Amino acid sequence: MAESDKVEYRPISVREALTEMKDVSEIMIDLAYSSALFNSDELAEEVMELEKRVDYLDYIIDMNVMLAARDAEDAEHLTAVTSVAAATNKISDAAADIAAIVLKNIGIHPIVRKAFQQVEERLARAIIKPDSIFVNQTLGDLELAAKIGVDVIAIRRCREWKIDPDDEEKILENDVLIARGAPHGIDELKELASGKLKLME
Amino acid sequence: MAESDKVEYRPISVREALTEMKDVSEIMIDLAYSSALFNSDELAEEVMELEKRVDYLDYIIDMNVMLAARDAEDAEHLTAVTSVAAATNKISDAAADIAAIVLKNIGIHPIVRKAFQQVEERLARAIIKPDSIFVNQTLGDLELAAKIGVDVIAIRRCREWKIDPDDEEKILENDVLIARGAPHGIDELKELASGKLKLME
Repeated sequence: MAESDKVEYRPISVREALTEMKDVSEIMIDLAYSSALFNSDELAEEVMELEKRVDYLDYIIDMNVMLAARDAEDAEHLTAVTSVAAATNKISDAAADIAAIVLKNIGIHPIVRKAFQQVEERLARAIIKPDSIFVNQTLGDLELAAKIGVDVIAIRRCREWKIDPDDEEKILENDVLIARGAPHGIDELKELASGKLKLME
Repeated sequence: MAESDKVEYRPISVREALTEMKDVSEIMIDLAYSSALFNSDELAEEVMELEKRVDYLDYIIDMNVMLAARDAEDAEHLTAVTSVAAATNKISDAAADIAAIVLKNIGIHPIVRKAFQQVEERLARAIIKPDSIFVNQTLGDLELAAKIGVDVIAIRRCREWKIDPDDEEKILENDVLIARGAPHGIDELKELASGKLKLME
């Protein structure tokens, strides 16, 4: 992922774009089911944010593939790339469909909740407030998996996403963390992010 | 899941159908990406088989929901159920789209393979031959996870699927196992299923 959040439209290869599309669409499905299970508007909103990213990646892939085709054989093989990208985009659209139902606020039917409730781990969103102990710490320093059993699967900084962030990734004020973990750990993460809790237990 | 493979069209509740749709669509995505990564027609064919099951489940849900709506408020809440089912069906359609590209045999472009190759575990299909040591053993007896590091995520018996089968599930001749594991374990599973290998190492 990009080191700096300033470079929003940095060049990205087809391979990178397709890898990210696949990872993002899988996170979107998890987030969408979790948003339905917990009737959570905040998770549903993150699905909608990710959908914009996937649409952008799909556009980048189509553009680059068109520029890469040199002859008919090339073009035939490259259609497999755009078709896989289109299928991955469809997966993310479906996740957005589920999130849209949640955001309509007609109330999630108990049948849906029961169907999804065997999910053991929870996904959650945590927003980093200015006085959180996380500010300016790297994920490697924090060791959240070892200390509170929570895995940060994505970070959103304004419109820029860092999917599957590595240990060197530094957490900044206003970052939005998407994390996966057991309910107790998720609650602790939210309190630490909000600045209410100042120490990891 | 059904105890017997004879009862193909047993009654199934909306909750059961939706839970199964969700589980199946997730397996389909994994299988579809694996089929693209390994250019595997056999995995792509299983995706197509599962797609039929999802279509059937979607139909069952629509039917039951229509019968369940007693008034306008009820109907409004139940649209959330059919919408979630439709979104899950869309996910499985997208997985089938990827499998269809593999089955077209135009060759998977190296870009697609590179994008998917960070997948550490492999999915594979193993068909149980008459002289396999697996025949008439339950999954609990076999302890495949402990012994060869392989997890059976689904069993297909003709057109009937057992998703996430439990320990009591008995393996029969001609069963098709869909399993997840490290490459070495997967190879061993295939040899044991084919009857070439008679002992778990």
